Amino acid sequence: MGKSMINEQYKKMLEGKSVIRQLSEFAAERGREIGYENVFDYSLGNPSVPVPEKLTEVMIELLKTKNSMELHGYSPSLGIASVKDKIADSLNRRFGMDYTGNHIFPTTGAAGAVAHAVRCVTSPGDEVLTFAPYFPEYNLYVNMTGAQLKVVPADTENFQINLEKLEEMLTEKVAALLINTPNNPSGAVYSSETLKELSDLLNKKQKEYGHDIFLISDEPYREIVFDKVEAPYVSKFYDNTLSCYSFSKSLSLPGERIGYVATNPRCRDAELISAICGQISRGIGHNCPPSIIQLAVAEVLDQTSDMSVYETNMNLLYGELTSLGFDCVKPGGTFYIFPKALEEDATVFCQKALKYDLVLVPSDSFGVPGYFRMAYCIDTEKVERSLLALRRFVKENY
Amino acid sequence: MGKSMINEQYKKMLEGKSVIRQLSEFAAERGREIGYENVFDYSLGNPSVPVPEKLTEVMIELLKTKNSMELHGYSPSLGIASVKDKIADSLNRRFGMDYTGNHIFPTTGAAGAVAHAVRCVTSPGDEVLTFAPYFPEYNLYVNMTGAQLKVVPADTENFQINLEKLEEMLTEKVAALLINTPNNPSGAVYSSETLKELSDLLNKKQKEYGHDIFLISDEPYREIVFDKVEAPYVSKFYDNTLSCYSFSKSLSLPGERIGYVATNPRCRDAELISAICGQISRGIGHNCPPSIIQLAVAEVLDQTSDMSVYETNMNLLYGELTSLGFDCVKPGGTFYIFPKALEEDATVFCQKALKYDLVLVPSDSFGVPGYFRMAYCIDTEKVERSLLALRRFVKENY
Repeated sequence: MGKSMINEQYKKMLEGKSVIRQLSEFAAERGREIGYENVFDYSLGNPSVPVPEKLTEVMIELLKTKNSMELHGYSPSLGIASVKDKIADSLNRRFGMDYTGNHIFPTTGAAGAVAHAVRCVTSPGDEVLTFAPYFPEYNLYVNMTGAQLKVVPADTENFQINLEKLEEMLTEKVAALLINTPNNPSGAVYSSETLKELSDLLNKKQKEYGHDIFLISDEPYREIVFDKVEAPYVSKFYDNTLSCYSFSKSLSLPGERIGYVATNPRCRDAELISAICGQISRGIGHNCPPSIIQLAVAEVLDQTSDMSVYETNMNLLYGELTSLGFDCVKPGGTFYIFPKALEEDATVFCQKALKYDLVLVPSDSFGVPGYFRMAYCIDTEKVERSLLALRRFVKENY
Repeated sequence: MGKSMINEQYKKMLEGKSVIRQLSEFAAERGREIGYENVFDYSLGNPSVPVPEKLTEVMIELLKTKNSMELHGYSPSLGIASVKDKIADSLNRRFGMDYTGNHIFPTTGAAGAVAHAVRCVTSPGDEVLTFAPYFPEYNLYVNMTGAQLKVVPADTENFQINLEKLEEMLTEKVAALLINTPNNPSGAVYSSETLKELSDLLNKKQKEYGHDIFLISDEPYREIVFDKVEAPYVSKFYDNTLSCYSFSKSLSLPGERIGYVATNPRCRDAELISAICGQISRGIGHNCPPSIIQLAVAEVLDQTSDMSVYETNMNLLYGELTSLGFDCVKPGGTFYIFPKALEEDATVFCQKALKYDLVLVPSDSFGVPGYFRMAYCIDTEKVERSLLALRRFVKENY
């Protein structure tokens, strides 16, 4: 048999299995042994609340009443115009922006949005900076384009931005910054002050280097913010901002793959960005998100699922963790919490926790050693039972 | 203002506007002047028949009865297992194959399937061969990976494969062939004889060069085949085959973006191909097709829309075109016909036709000069009226 022509780069990627996925598979397997209700599975960020009833109603109505050729026909390659107009209106109303439909490019979730945005504003050889802790898939979205992701070390004090380190790393080679607020995995929400400082620095460096520096803002958790916390709208702070959104979390439909890139109308070449995203899509055969889902979410843009359970869970966990002596920043949003492990090696720590059927994700792949992530998008009743396991785990080991 | 960091490669792509899209826009505009019913718009391959009723029923049933978190939750990154099993079963039953669910990788239509398949079995610098006439988007699916698409000249006799030219061009640099049968734009269906000859040549060359040569078979029109024509299942002829399918045409839902790559179980590294496709998806943030659509099509795998109108239209057009003296290969399937223009420059020919409100697509972008494509996925009543215009156009100009 001759030489295989399978692409070696992709083949090699198979070796690097995601830690989160491995843990999630462990949890499922353990569940088959002892009943999944007894596994305290904090591994996956899968929404645990139903979609808004209105969404289901809208979809049924579309299926019952709309001509099927229109309903399921090709979406224009830049998205359905009426849907984009409605998204722009909703953003303008809620965040005081001035988007038109042309600034909105529908994508398959925030993953698709970030991957498009990166391709749009970088070229091979450019650097993209992100801030630890960060979502590990960013490595792929950036590095597979020929650009290079570099990680600014975490501000572990409160998981805002380590501005000093950022200024050091923000060299002339940097084409874009990729931020994520509210943050997966820390749950931190960047404050207005953080965003103002970031914007000032970027504006200064743009002048100094004589080229644009784009801010790619990954915002799938924008709508999951807890009582008294304010989540400022990133694009208001900096003109060269591409906002990447997903309806996966706010409407609990991660499987339906719908989100968008919203281009700040004052950003460089704003009138071209959506069209360029369309070209990127062509090349990867990706095209638009599903037509029926575009049409359906357009009718519930100002709604969310009932997400109060995430705050309830957060308060339970934060209370217990701090009383057990964990060093932990209180999350302002998302459904993640990111405490410091009780020993240096987070992987060892999480291994020990597994004996108590506590499935925690060690922080190494998020770019910070010594922490762990809990995704508390699970039933509150289960969170409550997990507290006992957590107590036993800590008392018997530390 | 400093230098723009917008990716120049993608920006440049904006200049090359699709001829088909331009013509389709012209048709829409003309429709606003004289009523769209009076524009004989043969530009776009958009299915013109409803989805099967069962599909709508299944979707409504899913929405009404299934837990919304399960229904709309994350699809596993390689697709929903039960869906893949059902697709494998259907293919095995209909085509005598022996796929398992693991050989099926769900994608966003055939575009996604081909783009994944190309990335999977080629590396930058490799060549991919296709056969004129061909779907112009192939240029993007291949060339944007760093591999290079080369076009084997057409067999204009009957739009099968020009084997002599193929053998000349099938050098050691070729990693894959990309074929499309039933063919857009010619409507030709590759015969068993053609596929056998192709397979023999590829097997010979694999041995000679000591490396695999993959056959990427783009089959979105597989189910649209006319009376007495047989469409052989390509993968039965050659082990190293990746079959790329879309439900867009057979179920009339091009907007919902669903298709798959089916890997021949005997192909090289067959057990890895789906997993590698999953890695490719990760990198482009593309992930799976929508969950509800995966689940819905799985219930209607052996059905199609009522597509008899396409054959009716084909016969009307073929009869009229040949009686008007056009040189024309009779389509065996699809909803395209590809006659020779009545003058050398097909673009000039199609420009003249526009004066009769006949919107025809010149063949140049399909890699063959001097022909034109008609997409007859329109109402038969309109086809009938268009015949008069066609007659006038020919009599007054040629």
